Amino acid sequence: MPEAVSPTVSLPQDPAVDATIDAGRLDDTLAVLGALVDECRLELADAGLRVRAVDPASVAAVALDLPADAFEAYTAGGETVGVDVDRLADVVGLADPGDTVRLVLDTERRQLHVLVGELAYTLGLIDPEAIREPLDPAEMNYDCPAELTIAGRDVSRIVDAADMVSSHLTLGVEGETFYAEAAGDTDDVALAFGRDDLAALSPADVESLFSLDYLREMVRPIPAESEVAMELGTEQPVTLSFPVADGAGEATFLLSPRRSVA
Amino acid sequence: MPEAVSPTVSLPQDPAVDATIDAGRLDDTLAVLGALVDECRLELADAGLRVRAVDPASVAAVALDLPADAFEAYTAGGETVGVDVDRLADVVGLADPGDTVRLVLDTERRQLHVLVGELAYTLGLIDPEAIREPLDPAEMNYDCPAELTIAGRDVSRIVDAADMVSSHLTLGVEGETFYAEAAGDTDDVALAFGRDDLAALSPADVESLFSLDYLREMVRPIPAESEVAMELGTEQPVTLSFPVADGAGEATFLLSPRRSVA
Amino acid sequence: MPEAVSPTVSLPQDPAVDATIDAGRLDDTLAVLGALVDECRLELADAGLRVRAVDPASVAAVALDLPADAFEAYTAGGETVGVDVDRLADVVGLADPGDTVRLVLDTERRQLHVLVGELAYTLGLIDPEAIREPLDPAEMNYDCPAELTIAGRDVSRIVDAADMVSSHLTLGVEGETFYAEAAGDTDDVALAFGRDDLAALSPADVESLFSLDYLREMVRPIPAESEVAMELGTEQPVTLSFPVADGAGEATFLLSPRRSVA
Repeated sequence: MPEAVSPTVSLPQDPAVDATIDAGRLDDTLAVLGALVDECRLELADAGLRVRAVDPASVAAVALDLPADAFEAYTAGGETVGVDVDRLADVVGLADPGDTVRLVLDTERRQLHVLVGELAYTLGLIDPEAIREPLDPAEMNYDCPAELTIAGRDVSRIVDAADMVSSHLTLGVEGETFYAEAAGDTDDVALAFGRDDLAALSPADVESLFSLDYLREMVRPIPAESEVAMELGTEQPVTLSFPVADGAGEATFLLSPRRSVA
Repeated sequence: MPEAVSPTVSLPQDPAVDATIDAGRLDDTLAVLGALVDECRLELADAGLRVRAVDPASVAAVALDLPADAFEAYTAGGETVGVDVDRLADVVGLADPGDTVRLVLDTERRQLHVLVGELAYTLGLIDPEAIREPLDPAEMNYDCPAELTIAGRDVSRIVDAADMVSSHLTLGVEGETFYAEAAGDTDDVALAFGRDDLAALSPADVESLFSLDYLREMVRPIPAESEVAMELGTEQPVTLSFPVADGAGEATFLLSPRRSVA
Repeated sequence: MPEAVSPTVSLPQDPAVDATIDAGRLDDTLAVLGALVDECRLELADAGLRVRAVDPASVAAVALDLPADAFEAYTAGGETVGVDVDRLADVVGLADPGDTVRLVLDTERRQLHVLVGELAYTLGLIDPEAIREPLDPAEMNYDCPAELTIAGRDVSRIVDAADMVSSHLTLGVEGETFYAEAAGDTDDVALAFGRDDLAALSPADVESLFSLDYLREMVRPIPAESEVAMELGTEQPVTLSFPVADGAGEATFLLSPRRSVA
């Protein structure tokens, strides 16, 4: 028998997806996706939530995995749904701290029921075919020999400082130093992190130039106290990987380099 | 002898109104009135402050009573004054937490002295005759058989959620369930509260449609932790009654229904 | 040997100025200067930082002295540099609470290195000759016989209250009462402080009129809990003196009177 949640709303019988998760965890997850895209495909695989998305200009991409055990309850069988990320985040934002959110898919009506306490929000889904195809992971192999781990707060500080003087930023490694630099008309910014300032470093001399417009959005959802794993090359993309949902899942941003003007 | 409060300001001798109240209590009171009207009549009766006001479109009304014992000191004899609500609230907002506000009426000069610590603010009064006549309470008898008591935070959540999808909202009772519903172009919102979710319920099957523009303003001054008594009918107004000034007084909002489109 | 702070930034050898100070102290100092000017000359004297600046309309001036012992380390020999105050404040704002800021002058390249943790910000300096000449202190002797000391929070309250009704404000002393008054179209504001409300009072009957546009900016950086020494005359400037940098330095604002309309 369908489960009635209000006089006018009933959940489907045996729904294809029925998942319950801490509201804060889902909120963090959606903030990561919302940094790059307005709409995205959520793949509700048997093993958990899997998202691959690319921004409209194909300059940046995000990969996010939230395994089934990041949820309080999780039943799904591989359905892919298209959602308005900001809209879903607004609904989750109505939850109080400590609340859980239950997501129930109505495949037939192409609706996602989002249940928060007494609230049943019925979200109209977007045709996944209408959403930009993510990059093929096989194409995402780049030559990024330098690897390092740095605090989220330091990544934010790099972006905030560079933003004061320029619209782009150089990231590089020289010897045992990871550095970031931006040059403005009258002022310049440089940040240098030695081995002692980093949680880990596999050095290689590399340098690439990136757009701050993208980096500014990407660092926003990265928690200050988290550790961010970064991979860098020369005229190669940068990747930023960090834990999401209290460490139960992981997200990776990839940003393509800008051509250097010089 | 007139009481001098500064080299240029003296209070009238034997003022018709001389009332002292905790700044926070007066602030809460003015926030309730300011939700519906810019200017209103304050009736400073012997028994306390009494306000009846109606919004410019005659869609919503507010009744507020603050008995004399809600004040630290209170002397008045039935004077009615017209005030700019936001302006008076701005003056009270200059007080620090724990400050008291003293209101002294200068009948002759049509001024209200608002004294907060070292500050003497002289507020020019508005002719009460120039302010829209409130509804006659005798006309305010409606057929609202359903009564319930719900937390202020739940009323806010209903309005916030409905606001995401529509400009109006259905409130109703069916069986032992109080519900709120709003339908948007792609998304719908429903909230259901059973007897266990409510502090009280006198059920009756009813349903009415309301404008969110008004409800949004009305819920703003209702404290999250307060209990709100609601009366509902079918195509009838809704009333929301709640304590003000730390429970020393009471306010009631009344909102007329919208005609259903169906 | 020049000191390398990043792969591309090196500090000059034996710099003319090399000063380290708590970020919060420098932030407070710049907020005082930024209240009146966008650009100013910093005189880095042997005994400490000395600033004299006048606003573009020559209506208000600021004098600020931060002795060498307000710094954690201080080496300077009388250099005067021109800086963009807001820009320098933005850089200092990137520091975390408890961080120190190191300022190193590169005389040859006309740059100030601002070092905060891993960040090296290179600030292009402004030709001091291009910045408006401050008032000659010898011209700054006015006839201000009334002196008093009042809490920073009271000065803010005076300005906030007067701002509600007018664009200018009268400050005066009559007998043993310091008062502030502003008259609007319908409302008036008066504040009176007796000897008991003031930390000190050397009375003299005086009264002058001032622009709130300037006072609003000037009170912003004055801490609520600080004591402000005020000197007043009749149709004379007002001076406001208060401690900066945890009391290690002192600042004085001077504001010229407006001609009374009467």
